[in-house]
Amino acid sequence: MIADRIRRPALLDKIVSAEEAAALIKDGMIIGMSGFTRAGDAKAVPIAMAARARTEPFKITLITGASLGHDVDRMLTEAKVLARRMPFQADRTLRTAINRGEVMFIDQHLSETVEHLRSNQLGPIDYAIVEAAAITEEGNIVPSTSVGNSASFAVLAKKIIVEINLSQPAELEGLHDIYFPGKRPTRVPIPVVTCDSRVGFPFVPIDPDKIAAIVVTDEKDSASTIEPQDADTSAIASHLIRFFEDEVEKGRLDLTLQPLQAGIGTIANSVLTGLADGPFHHLRMYSEVLQDSTFDLFDAGKLAFASGSSITLSTACAERVFADFHKYKEHLVLRPQEISNHPEVIRRLGVIGINTALELDIYGNVNSTHVNGTHMMNGIGGSGDFARNAFLSIFVTKSLAKDGKLSSIVPMVPHVDHTEHDVDIIVTENGLADLRELAPRERAREILRNCVHPSFRDALMSYFERACARGGHTPHLLEEALSWHIHAQATGTMHKS
Amino acid sequence: MIADRIRRPALLDKIVSAEEAAALIKDGMIIGMSGFTRAGDAKAVPIAMAARARTEPFKITLITGASLGHDVDRMLTEAKVLARRMPFQADRTLRTAINRGEVMFIDQHLSETVEHLRSNQLGPIDYAIVEAAAITEEGNIVPSTSVGNSASFAVLAKKIIVEINLSQPAELEGLHDIYFPGKRPTRVPIPVVTCDSRVGFPFVPIDPDKIAAIVVTDEKDSASTIEPQDADTSAIASHLIRFFEDEVEKGRLDLTLQPLQAGIGTIANSVLTGLADGPFHHLRMYSEVLQDSTFDLFDAGKLAFASGSSITLSTACAERVFADFHKYKEHLVLRPQEISNHPEVIRRLGVIGINTALELDIYGNVNSTHVNGTHMMNGIGGSGDFARNAFLSIFVTKSLAKDGKLSSIVPMVPHVDHTEHDVDIIVTENGLADLRELAPRERAREILRNCVHPSFRDALMSYFERACARGGHTPHLLEEALSWHIHAQATGTMHKS
Repeated sequence: MIADRIRRPALLDKIVSAEEAAALIKDGMIIGMSGFTRAGDAKAVPIAMAARARTEPFKITLITGASLGHDVDRMLTEAKVLARRMPFQADRTLRTAINRGEVMFIDQHLSETVEHLRSNQLGPIDYAIVEAAAITEEGNIVPSTSVGNSASFAVLAKKIIVEINLSQPAELEGLHDIYFPGKRPTRVPIPVVTCDSRVGFPFVPIDPDKIAAIVVTDEKDSASTIEPQDADTSAIASHLIRFFEDEVEKGRLDLTLQPLQAGIGTIANSVLTGLADGPFHHLRMYSEVLQDSTFDLFDAGKLAFASGSSITLSTACAERVFADFHKYKEHLVLRPQEISNHPEVIRRLGVIGINTALELDIYGNVNSTHVNGTHMMNGIGGSGDFARNAFLSIFVTKSLAKDGKLSSIVPMVPHVDHTEHDVDIIVTENGLADLRELAPRERAREILRNCVHPSFRDALMSYFERACARGGHTPHLLEEALSWHIHAQATGTMHKS
Repeated sequence: MIADRIRRPALLDKIVSAEEAAALIKDGMIIGMSGFTRAGDAKAVPIAMAARARTEPFKITLITGASLGHDVDRMLTEAKVLARRMPFQADRTLRTAINRGEVMFIDQHLSETVEHLRSNQLGPIDYAIVEAAAITEEGNIVPSTSVGNSASFAVLAKKIIVEINLSQPAELEGLHDIYFPGKRPTRVPIPVVTCDSRVGFPFVPIDPDKIAAIVVTDEKDSASTIEPQDADTSAIASHLIRFFEDEVEKGRLDLTLQPLQAGIGTIANSVLTGLADGPFHHLRMYSEVLQDSTFDLFDAGKLAFASGSSITLSTACAERVFADFHKYKEHLVLRPQEISNHPEVIRRLGVIGINTALELDIYGNVNSTHVNGTHMMNGIGGSGDFARNAFLSIFVTKSLAKDGKLSSIVPMVPHVDHTEHDVDIIVTENGLADLRELAPRERAREILRNCVHPSFRDALMSYFERACARGGHTPHLLEEALSWHIHAQATGTMHKS
């Protein structure tokens, strides 16, 4: 069995325990580790690193694809291993340490991290720690359920530790398309021209002599944490279906729409699943994470192809998909996140991006990351890569949070991740605001009319009208602009009754 | 002479007066007009439109490349012709009308406007009004000193009015490279792979039957309004030279650097000119507007090639350049702004973008457009296209404004055009902050130490330290975050002594 997964016999000698591999990691190192939206993460070595640090303290810079499963970020935080962390995370314990200023978190567009490594603005990486489904006869690495930044980590690192995960289906081999953009300024166009373009290798080509250790594991990916559809997400989905139908009627889209991207999380996943109820067909995805919704659309016969950088599923969906993986495999490809999220490809294909806002302001500027403008939730992730370059940039959110005490639409967002230039459509359960080709005052009226929850509408309208009376292209009352957040910090609610 | 400029004899019958051409424009039309940073704008028809509107009121949506010369935006505003205006402007009278809410201004990334037209999300254009140096035998249009959006306006419009400008040098013919990306989702890569790639036609290919009228003019472009270098801009340039030298020493750049972009205006122009004093050679530009600095670098023997979308010069520089244009022509190309500013090409080439901030906050979020967060100056222009996709995104500003009463670095910017993710380097006359791979708290310390003016440093440091004590990834005191602007609105100064 091991010989099927490690097909280069000389490498069998490299098999060690997780503890032995973890001992290679020294204080001050820069580590590139696999893992993207909980999928395909290294599962044994980082946990052994955390264990070792309890008796032998050391600190590292940890770079991943995106978020990790298996409480790895929690364990590494508790063991005080993380000095610096980039480009994304989604762990409660790590988040707290970041917000205390104990871990320096560099929140980056997911397409960019590898550019910085390649141009030596970041790095060099001492060890890449990557999960693999197999190592080929030539010593090349076959990734598992995510690619993320792992391919470039392995190619650019001084040394590599591979975790061969026996619980990852051997049929994953052939799923991946590993392409590296060239160095600049002599780079040529990235040849991806359709969602199903295959332009690279089905493995990560490396020098096998760089493999310092191999650890054999047998543990599944952590399940996704998305919640089922509810009345609000269903309402958001039906507003969006009606909008797309209207665009088809106006001749701007056909029923296959444009390639779709949906951000990670419950709302975007539910909205995508909801598209199965529309008249659309032969849909394609060019996205970063493929969630349950992707396979719901496949099973509904609506989806022709899906390109992503990871597959992150609920336990039930994972059982269904991996039991019958051959059915899906020829309609899937996993790419490095630099390619799944590349501005060049997103703009070329004309992707429709559907991302979730934490909150937004009356002019359509979006905060995706910072509670009260100060406290990091997860990170910007790939939302900027897609929103900036999309054919249509759509943001979805429920209009209320915290049992109705907070409005997701506020006078001014205290942190901006996406400026109004990059936000075309906003959808809440109340309705849809089409902001294309509108000036800020017009955008505000459209958002106030369609998206705001009735319990906050009068107060927001009052703010907007009083600001307009004072003037400006983007009217604001600076002394009142952040008062909703200040009030909520003090009292727990934005209602000022 | 006219026959040299209008080389398709049948079109000579289309010559009319500016008044006759202006009479074609009807109330409610969408007009696409040439003009990018005062260069190559239509000079006669819009002025005749303004004159006509005084007795025969009508309103239009006016789309251009960028800003216009010849007070056209002022005259059209005063004549109340403008209902809607996009994607950029730089006129005092129009700005006032925008800030009063009288003209709806849609401030767009300069690369995007044509995408919206091509996908029918905007338009259709009733008339394109474009300046030309000539019309060819086949009836194709040779642009003058800018391309901007004119090529797509002409191709996509129902009808075209051409202004043949005899004062534009005939040698401009051959300077342009007109390429149109295909429709999505079947678009192929844009084949520009170096600054000097030529991938299209040297003219705008149109159906000559669409030419409704030709107006002959003989008036030069408005001169640029840039001011000469001063001690502050020289200091900014020398900080930047030292930084580039350091990057060369670290092996991250060589002495040819990467293709350079500089935003319009005095500071970016001065900084670019200042590079002539460094050890760099065979520099290349991939920019939007080519200003005096481009030709200063050519004359200093430092610049090998410059790609732009317009040439906007001071009177003295224009005389020098156009007297000897053959000397420069083979080292120059003008492209549609969609291509000069295209994310795909900027990212591929690895452009170093140098843009001007109106103000920025202690974490490096940049406001390029809105005074006090409310009043529009000019627009975001191309700065977002470059900053997001650059190899290095550099923002320059003087640390003080209004005779020292305002700090250009503030606790929180009340309007964000460029988020911290898109801002790598900040330079003021005081010094340079290298923000790459730093977390927000580290970014703040770097900016406070190097860029802030001493007269505001203690107050900003106090804000930052008190915010850190309260916690957060990006610490802020919401009740104080905008107080500097509120104080300045009331008293004219951010000093609170």
